[in-house]
Amino acid sequence: MCELLAMSSRRPTRLTFSLETLAAHSGRTGRYRDGWGAAFYQDNDVALFREPTAAGDSALVRFVEAQGPGTTLAISHIRRATRGAVTLSNTQPFARELAGRMHVFAHNGDLSGIERTGNLAFDHYRPVGTTDSEHAFCALLERMRGLWDSTSRLPSLDERLSIVSQFAADLRKLGPSNFLYADGDTLFAHGHRRIQAAGDIAPPGLFLLSRRCADADEPVHAVGVTVAAGFQEVLLIASVPLTDENWRPFAEGELVAVSAGQVLTAELA
Amino acid sequence: MCELLAMSSRRPTRLTFSLETLAAHSGRTGRYRDGWGAAFYQDNDVALFREPTAAGDSALVRFVEAQGPGTTLAISHIRRATRGAVTLSNTQPFARELAGRMHVFAHNGDLSGIERTGNLAFDHYRPVGTTDSEHAFCALLERMRGLWDSTSRLPSLDERLSIVSQFAADLRKLGPSNFLYADGDTLFAHGHRRIQAAGDIAPPGLFLLSRRCADADEPVHAVGVTVAAGFQEVLLIASVPLTDENWRPFAEGELVAVSAGQVLTAELA
Repeated sequence: MCELLAMSSRRPTRLTFSLETLAAHSGRTGRYRDGWGAAFYQDNDVALFREPTAAGDSALVRFVEAQGPGTTLAISHIRRATRGAVTLSNTQPFARELAGRMHVFAHNGDLSGIERTGNLAFDHYRPVGTTDSEHAFCALLERMRGLWDSTSRLPSLDERLSIVSQFAADLRKLGPSNFLYADGDTLFAHGHRRIQAAGDIAPPGLFLLSRRCADADEPVHAVGVTVAAGFQEVLLIASVPLTDENWRPFAEGELVAVSAGQVLTAELA
Repeated sequence: MCELLAMSSRRPTRLTFSLETLAAHSGRTGRYRDGWGAAFYQDNDVALFREPTAAGDSALVRFVEAQGPGTTLAISHIRRATRGAVTLSNTQPFARELAGRMHVFAHNGDLSGIERTGNLAFDHYRPVGTTDSEHAFCALLERMRGLWDSTSRLPSLDERLSIVSQFAADLRKLGPSNFLYADGDTLFAHGHRRIQAAGDIAPPGLFLLSRRCADADEPVHAVGVTVAAGFQEVLLIASVPLTDENWRPFAEGELVAVSAGQVLTAELA
């Protein structure tokens, strides 16, 4: 099991979260020694930082925390290897180009038997590593490809939601399936089940915090996010609440679409 | 015009080159303020660092120089924008997955009219940015795709060389076409023409330095590369000689294939 974190904001914001803090909040510090990654959208492209080493020991993490790029959409993942060796190619998030924009995916869970699941096969996109998570991403892009290739415009939110929703339903049949998927326009977050503090596998798999920051002369330093001065909407999604604020748990199988710091839709399984 | 640098070695090596030094050796310091990037292969995947800012001002460059990952194949590029805005998506090297491995491309030159050149079109891969260089990369992968998809083995060097050679010939018709292309197994380097110190556009477009380091108890610090103790073969390819050693200029249109610090083949146009 791994830890997920996403940030969406109305205006470009620096994500100064501590990956170590994220691990600490999960209550299982020290079990996430196998890799970390963070993707920062810049228009249709992403700056992607990944290492197959513990985030706590990493000079690159300290660089990203202190001087990472400003963005309106960031996705981060820390890994405890359950399937696949500790290599760069098995380190999330994964990023691939589709229709001239980078798509990003990060997953937490266990998708037993995905390699034998016919409707989650792929052709166009192939995994570089050996994780079930990257297999799932390739299968999702395979389904998305027809939609994006059939038009030069941005496919509608409903069209994209329909594909992501069916994909999520197919993953849930295999095992715990919490994921973050972004296409450069919208972030799709799916909460399912995860190993809870007591050791049982149960929902919630993700939590959401929405915050509005009023005008301010000085930047507001909140956990995880340095919000630029001025009005700003920021939305955080994480495996566990990172503050004492009122984080909303995802229902089992809930799929939320987010853009510019705002929830666009939330649909239950 | 931009600057290219590649390093291939028999055993994993840290590439501690200075991007600023590379620019300085070009004799046009200060003209390369528009971005830099470096790709470090780790098995079939790459750790890719890019910024649409001057290398000399970058904290990320200092991180990469001091603590970048060890590798047997690295490709770097510094940019002076001639086509396309100063954005991350226009910052090289470019990396895409084909057949489950990351392919990397960096180009220096000017490919006028590439968007109207029918046999350099693409379908499967689309540019994320707006440069002629990324257009060329998508066209190359389009040609490579059939070869890789038709087999589960590594296509032979001859098969791959044949495609790269024809691709290079097609680029040369458009304008200066120095490029580095790697498929995770082999590095293909093509030298053509570039803007020389005197201002004329002429060969050579690239230079090559091959060095063998005998056994040593201590690491050998050479310009650009920290060679681990012990016997090692290291090959450098750059836009301009970076030392006073005997760098061999590429002939106009020469295509060199490199792996594990050794030249596999070199063919003239």
